[in-house]
Parts: sequence; C-alpha cells; structure tokens
Amino acid sequence: MNSQTKLACLAMLLLIAAPAIAAQTPAGAARAYTAAHRPMLVQQFGEFLSIPNVAADPSGLKRNADLLVAALKKRGIYAQLLSIPGAPSVVLGRIDTPGAQHTIVFYAHYDGQPVTPSEWDSPPFSPVVREVNGEQRVYARSAGDDKAAIFAQLTAFDALKAAGISLRANIRFVWEGEEEAGSPHLEQILTANRDLVHGDVFLVCDGPVDQSGRQTVVFGARGDAHLEVTVYGPHRGLHSGHYGNWAPNPAMMLAQLLAGMKDDDGHVLIPHFYDGIEPLSAMEKDALADAPVNDAMLMKAFWLGRVDGGGARLLELINQPSLNVNGISSGQTGARATNVIPSTATADIDLRLVVGVDWRKQQQRVVDYIGSRGYFIVDHEPTQQILLDHPRVAMVVRDEASYNAVRTPMDLPIAQEVIAAVKSARGNVVLLPTMGGSVPLGAMERAADTRTITVPIANYDDNQHAANENLRLQNLWDGVETMAALLEMN
Amino acid sequence: MNSQTKLACLAMLLLIAAPAIAAQTPAGAARAYTAAHRPMLVQQFGEFLSIPNVAADPSGLKRNADLLVAALKKRGIYAQLLSIPGAPSVVLGRIDTPGAQHTIVFYAHYDGQPVTPSEWDSPPFSPVVREVNGEQRVYARSAGDDKAAIFAQLTAFDALKAAGISLRANIRFVWEGEEEAGSPHLEQILTANRDLVHGDVFLVCDGPVDQSGRQTVVFGARGDAHLEVTVYGPHRGLHSGHYGNWAPNPAMMLAQLLAGMKDDDGHVLIPHFYDGIEPLSAMEKDALADAPVNDAMLMKAFWLGRVDGGGARLLELINQPSLNVNGISSGQTGARATNVIPSTATADIDLRLVVGVDWRKQQQRVVDYIGSRGYFIVDHEPTQQILLDHPRVAMVVRDEASYNAVRTPMDLPIAQEVIAAVKSARGNVVLLPTMGGSVPLGAMERAADTRTITVPIANYDDNQHAANENLRLQNLWDGVETMAALLEMN
Repeated sequence: MNSQTKLACLAMLLLIAAPAIAAQTPAGAARAYTAAHRPMLVQQFGEFLSIPNVAADPSGLKRNADLLVAALKKRGIYAQLLSIPGAPSVVLGRIDTPGAQHTIVFYAHYDGQPVTPSEWDSPPFSPVVREVNGEQRVYARSAGDDKAAIFAQLTAFDALKAAGISLRANIRFVWEGEEEAGSPHLEQILTANRDLVHGDVFLVCDGPVDQSGRQTVVFGARGDAHLEVTVYGPHRGLHSGHYGNWAPNPAMMLAQLLAGMKDDDGHVLIPHFYDGIEPLSAMEKDALADAPVNDAMLMKAFWLGRVDGGGARLLELINQPSLNVNGISSGQTGARATNVIPSTATADIDLRLVVGVDWRKQQQRVVDYIGSRGYFIVDHEPTQQILLDHPRVAMVVRDEASYNAVRTPMDLPIAQEVIAAVKSARGNVVLLPTMGGSVPLGAMERAADTRTITVPIANYDDNQHAANENLRLQNLWDGVETMAALLEMN
Repeated sequence: MNSQTKLACLAMLLLIAAPAIAAQTPAGAARAYTAAHRPMLVQQFGEFLSIPNVAADPSGLKRNADLLVAALKKRGIYAQLLSIPGAPSVVLGRIDTPGAQHTIVFYAHYDGQPVTPSEWDSPPFSPVVREVNGEQRVYARSAGDDKAAIFAQLTAFDALKAAGISLRANIRFVWEGEEEAGSPHLEQILTANRDLVHGDVFLVCDGPVDQSGRQTVVFGARGDAHLEVTVYGPHRGLHSGHYGNWAPNPAMMLAQLLAGMKDDDGHVLIPHFYDGIEPLSAMEKDALADAPVNDAMLMKAFWLGRVDGGGARLLELINQPSLNVNGISSGQTGARATNVIPSTATADIDLRLVVGVDWRKQQQRVVDYIGSRGYFIVDHEPTQQILLDHPRVAMVVRDEASYNAVRTPMDLPIAQEVIAAVKSARGNVVLLPTMGGSVPLGAMERAADTRTITVPIANYDDNQHAANENLRLQNLWDGVETMAALLEMN
C-alpha cells in the first residue's frame, strides 16, 4: 500500500461523512473507495451476476441490459439501448465533458457462455464467494468474462466522483450482449449509431491479464471462426455385433478425419493453414521478449505433462492461427453406452486467426481438406439419396458470426497514452501484441471508425468459458484502479 | 396358409368352445391359437414391455422376474428364482415329462439395453403398435431384444395345451436379467444350479432372424469384450483462444489414437488383432454360401453409400473379430458447444470376438496398442503427479463382464434334430455358423454342461440396442410357431 492510499484509508476511517479528497490520483481514489466499500460492492456485483445471461435466454439478457441502463441513469449518465430486431441490445452510456479534446470508449460485454449446470460446484447464477488458497474468489458465470469489467468501470466512476476528481475526456460505455455468440450484430448496431459510439479509441475491457498476474495491455485479438462437422454412418443406430465390420462407423470416420488435421505436436496439417500471416513488428517482438514466461507454472497448474508447439512459448503460439476441437459427440459413453454403431458423429471446431488470415478463407481451407479426404460436402442435413450416392458425406455448418484478427500498432500516440495511464495506476505492466482470445475488434474499428486497445482485468485462471467460472476479488479491486486511471485520461 | 391351418381356423370359428384338436402339428396349433387371440396377446405383450428393465433400475428388473414366475405358475409350471446377491435373478421354469429321453432348455433374457428417452418417438416403456409400410409393429425397449422370445415361448406352451398336444421332452426355461450388461453372473448362477438347468441343448432365443426375413438357426455367437478409454488434456477446460496451440486437446488426442486403430476400409490395424481365428468347417462354409445375400438391400435400408470390409459380404465379415466405437464424448457440440479445450475425451470400444480369439488377449492387444502410441496406461483416474510425469496418459477400464465366442458344430445329432424341428414349422430356414451379436454361450455351455443353438425370432430391423426398438408382430406370430415346434421336440 502506498502512502497516498494509506492517507486515503485514514481519511475514510476518521471522516466517514467528510467530502472526498481531491488531491488523490485516480487509482488512489479507486483503492480508497473499494477498500471502504468491499462488502457492499461484493453484494452489488453478486446481484449483477445472478441475472442469467446466456444466448438461449433472451429475456435474461434483456434484464441485464435494463439493469445496466438503470445503473447508468442512477449515476446521472445519459443511457440508452441501441437495438435491432432479433438481437440483444447494446447498452450505451454517454458522458460529454465540456472542453474535452478526446473521446474514450469503454467496451465490455454483459452476456456469458452457455452453462452446463451439472458440471458446476454451485449453480452458475447463484454467485458465491469462496476462499481458495488464501484468495477470495466469486464464482458465477461471467464473473470474469465479462461482467467484472462493466462493474469495475461503474465502480471507478463512483470512486472518482466520491474523490471529487473530474473527467477530462468524453466517455462512452458500449456494453454488448452478444459477444459470446460471436457478436453477429455488433457491427450493424455500431454502424447505425456511429455518431454515438465514435471515439479516439475503444478500450476493450475483456479477457484475462497475463498469467503472472501483472496488469496487461493488449494491442490486438485473434479472430475467430467456427465450423461444425457431422459425418454419417447408418441412418439409425445399428447393433454393433450384427453390423460391425460392415456398416461404417461415423465415430471412427470422424476420428480419422480429425486426426489428419494435426500432427502429434499440434501443428496443423491442413494445406495453406499458415499462409498469409502478417509478421510482428520490431516493437511487438520486443514486447513479447519482455513478457513473463509462465509456461512451466501453467503446465503444473493445468496438470500437463507435455504441451503442443514443439518447444515454442505460449505467447509465441498465440501469434499463430490455431485449430481446436471444442467437442466431439457420437453415441454415448459411460453408463449410457450401448453396443451400437452410431448414426452420426459431430465435432465443433474453433479456428483462431491472426492478422493476415481471413476467416472465410480459413474456413474454406478446412472444408477443402475435408473434401480432399473423400467427403461430399453439404451444408444441410443430407437426404437419403445424397447419402446413397456418395461413399462419404459431411455436413459442414460454417458459423457466419466469425471475424478477423486485429492488431493496433503500439507506437500510435493513443496507444502510448493508454500505456501511460495504465502504468500510472498499476506500475509494471505487460504489453502484448495480441491476446489469445477473440473479440470482434475489427467490427468495432470499422463501425465506430476507431482503434482498439484491450485492457483486461480478470485473473487468468477464471475458468472463463467453462464450469466454475470465477473472479479473484483482488483482480476486481485492481481493475477498478485501472479503470479509474483510464476514465480520467485527457 | 396351408390346408391344415385353414382347417384349424375354421374349427376355431365354428367351435369356439370346442375342445382343442389333437391332430395338428405344433406349428399349426400355434398359428391357430395366435390367430384367434391376437388382441389379447398384444395386450399381454404390452403389459410385459411396460415394466422397465434396464440395469440402472434393479427394482424394475425384479418386477419383470416376479411377473415371469407368476406367468409360469399360472400355467402350472414349477418356477423359482435363481439368485445371488447383487445381481438380477435368473427365472427358472421346469417341466418334467414322464418318460422323457431329452431335456431342452429355452434361454432368453428379460433385461434390456439402457434407454435415452429423448431419442425415442414414444416413451420406451409405453408400448404402442404402429403400422409402418403396411406392417404392424410394437415399439418399446426389449420388444425385439429379448422379451419377444419369452413371450413367444409362453404363448407356444399355451397353444400346445389348447390343442391338446403333449410334450415329449423335459423342458427348462432359463430367463436371464443381466444379458445386456454382459451376463457377469450367469455362469456363477448356472454353475450353482447345474442340476436344475442342465439339458441336452440350450436353445438361445435371442437376436434377429436373417435380414431376408427367413427363419434362422444359428450355431454360435461372437464373443464380446469392452474397453473404455479416457485421455487427458488440461485438468480443467481451458479457453481455446488463450491456450489453443499450446494445451494438448484430448478430443484431438483421442481422434488420433482411434484413427490409427483402423484403416479407411474398416480393417483393424492393431497388431495381432486377427491372430488365432479358428477357420470355418466345410459344412459351415456351405451354409454361408447358401445364405441369402442381403447386402445391397441393407445398404439402401440404412442409407449407406459404402460399406467397410473391402468387398466381403456381411455374413463373411461377422465371422471376423471387430472393433467398434460405441461412442465418443469430449466437451460439447451443438448449442452447448463452448470455445474450450476439453479436459478429457472418452471412447467406449466394443470388441466382437470369434472362436479362437480370447477376450482377455484381445483387450490386451488394444491396450498394448495404446501403450505403443506413447500413452502411460492407468486403470483408475490418474493423479496430478501421474499426469505431470507422463506426456500422455490413458485410463483404460476393461469390462470384466466379457466372454468368448462359441460355435456348435452343425453336424451334431442334437443340431440336426433342432434343424428338423424348425424346418417342420417354418420351411426354408437359413443356417448360419455364427450370429454377429453376442450372447454368453460359453458360460452356459460350461455351467450347464451343454451345447447351445440359437433360434432368434425378431425382425432384423428391430432397432435393438437403439431408440425406437420394435418388433414386427408377424415375427411374433411366426416365432410362436417355431417355439411350439421346439417345445414339442422328442
């Protein structure tokens, strides 16, 4: 704790009802504020997390959006929903600061990944605080990804106000409700409201900080494209004794198809998969070289006896495109397994993209590969005739809510200003050319005519996208300090 | 309809209350009886099918066993449960015929495969009769596999009695409740009751008739062995963006492992997999050559554009050992898919065996193959230390409820007598050295000191082991005729 913060704490203790102290830094004000209000803040964060926010539940998403509009209005901030039919609304908050030279836009998202409640230790929308290895964490869907960022921004605003610190720039909050579905309507909504959402920079407050725990600023994100592949065996499940050896088994066919996509080291074997990658600049390479090496710590944390990548570091590997099987299903396993030749087998495939690799092209490369393995490709359930006419048929459903990677040069003036603000709050920060995850930065940049820089606050081990998602509370408090410094930028 | 049967029908119509006619053949008596009582028989069969009979529901299995004991006693047949702790009982029925030279044992099973109700068009334990392409079928779990056989035996007994036809041999009914779980306790129960269950032959009334629809007599069954294989990625699901390319993906690892087990034509590549197979005799080869060739019809019925086996016929291929993936699961697909590197991937593998290939050896060959692909093999959930110490870890759970194949020579006197009885009822029958499916014939032969011959009655397309299992009602009526002829054997 620095001396300024100690003073602030003392002031809070001695002068509970006194007016806020104006001489603090934004981060100091944030630290004092969160230290004084932790139980209330945890309570309020829990209320936010308890509202279901999965794509399958549009009414839950609406409740989240309405709550955020109310939260903005309560603070005297102009708020509205930016809506188009059939999509969750974008929540817009708008603060016009007299005499401001710049407009800073804070992007985050209030929707979360789908949940499988049976996999969770506690229900995903019943937030609980648990102490793990001496650290307090709150467990709930979106605790880390990405309600933490929204809550940190609102709390930072309150902290600055309580401390009497004035804003200097125009501020916009743009909180999306469809990020986990690939942001299929974000560009359309932002384009239709360009004047409302335009700014000098979009600060994308999403994703985790570096695994070392240090505050991180990231200048890009990988693009993301999806495919779902289904291959076909017999039209109905067949007895594996009576027809095994004769009726083709789709689980085995899918295994053989997927197996050929990567070597044993995780290198993708699909032709042209690595074509067109834009190389890193010297400044980006330097930043990577300066970044912490967490690989051995992570292997232990994840119980991994080996990793893919032929010896390359994790931070190098996320600057490459990737192919990941999110899931495979065919027939049943465990107690429900039956002696059957399944009728179909399905794999959900996630392609991460880097700058220079277009998502439609990358999807097509995978489709071409499947075709090269003897499959007749359809994009809808094949008819009996199609199945009879072709030795192998694959249905490939391309997710059109895919998008390309984006990277903002670190040497732009706005980039340097953001780095300075974050450093003022958090000291020694990690600078990364790209994050491993994906956010639709390109859609933002095009639609809002802006650049994007990502400032995450969640802990790396927040189980985002999985069961038992959580946020380390210290990351929330630190995040409020970071957001306060960014809100107070010139 | 032959003239004898026409006469019988006429008798039934004219002389409803008249005593049964003794001059009929057993099959003719059966045909007359079922023709006269169809609605009642369908009703009674439906009541039997409505009692749940899955391994996960021991009380349901008990209700089935109790119902069968009551059904035997109602007919004046001595009945008892043969039980050991922790296993469903075997239902024994016993008819001692004065002066009998032989004892014929009718084996069937009253348990069914697990069900996934969401996959069924109607609930699996709410039997319904539907007309499909002009044929009436009853839909329910075990309609074909294997309650049909039990019901046909009871009905054949009633038909003979109604016709005044006396039995000539001692008869035993041995109805098991654990066949779909691999009959783990059958041998123990039969051995403990050898005097009660011993006979000249076990007639195994299970499985479907030939796909041509002709009555079939089968002289063996493939053995069956199982393995469940789980491979490991990160200890918890990881974000596929942040860790893809680096954290090994168990779905991909499993795909690569499975893919190497077979070539594109379904030939198993695991070393020694085909070693030791006992060749078919000349009589068995002749029977195979005489059997109908249904392959093209089946391909169309199953919507298959190609089949495995390099051009060999289905009936040849089931005389080879097989490896079938019953199911794969890792992560999620469809609407529940998330962008995650799954933590584990599991495959359920079914090995069918032929005479000369021992089940423990065959399991070991698969395990050895997995080891040869760089996996450290465990038989229980691996600890963190084991996972950290080994680049690749596979948990292999060997199902100990596995058993070997059995084949009874077709030229044995008892085999020739069974063939003659079935031909007397059904005319032109198909003789097969083995069925594709598995029944624990070896356990029966050892424990009851007997030989086994299989006489199935279900239609081939009964969806056994899958959703919408059904029995073509005509197969039930035909089956009663077959069972009547066998019950009346000398």
